[in-house]
Amino acid sequence: TQQLLSEPSPAAPRTRPYRVSTADRSVRKGIMAHSLEDLLHKVRDTLTLADKPFSLVLEEDGTTVETEEYFQALADNTVFMVLQKGQKWQPPSEQGTRYQL
Amino acid sequence: TQQLLSEPSPAAPRTRPYRVSTADRSVRKGIMAHSLEDLLHKVRDTLTLADKPFSLVLEEDGTTVETEEYFQALADNTVFMVLQKGQKWQPPSEQGTRYQL
Repeated sequence: TQQLLSEPSPAAPRTRPYRVSTADRSVRKGIMAHSLEDLLHKVRDTLTLADKPFSLVLEEDGTTVETEEYFQALADNTVFMVLQKGQKWQPPSEQGTRYQL
Repeated sequence: TQQLLSEPSPAAPRTRPYRVSTADRSVRKGIMAHSLEDLLHKVRDTLTLADKPFSLVLEEDGTTVETEEYFQALADNTVFMVLQKGQKWQPPSEQGTRYQL
């Protein structure tokens, strides 16, 4: 049975793995978090953002993740991107991470 | 067993994740909703549309989603686009989010 999909207590979400990229995709780190708030704190520490404001978007399409509820619906190892002031999500193809011949 | 995939009560649809984009694709947000009505309310709040009328279409091809029945048949993480008065769906390619060589 798939234990991971049958978590019985939504009130106490388990700690799960996520990946967080910088806006230019030059740095990507694996971070464990049990909530959006927890992830935001850890991103701040890990990417040494000090007290500069930032938002988290999905790396794949730039979807802003603002609510705990939506965060909890995301899969393990979802890749986030940190956007600081003035930074904008760009599709991966423009930055050379995908190629088609 | 896959608890999350075997919700047994069709009368009370489970809350699912959706993505909602502005008409110019500059903002995309993740929103949880259990019905079309719920999503419409949350879109109004999240994208601060105040009391201006708007419709929801599918981001991929501009299909208008008006009925609860059709909404419930859509997949998790379906991407919607908000169209306000005077706004028209445009294909993604014109806005540079996809490239073909």
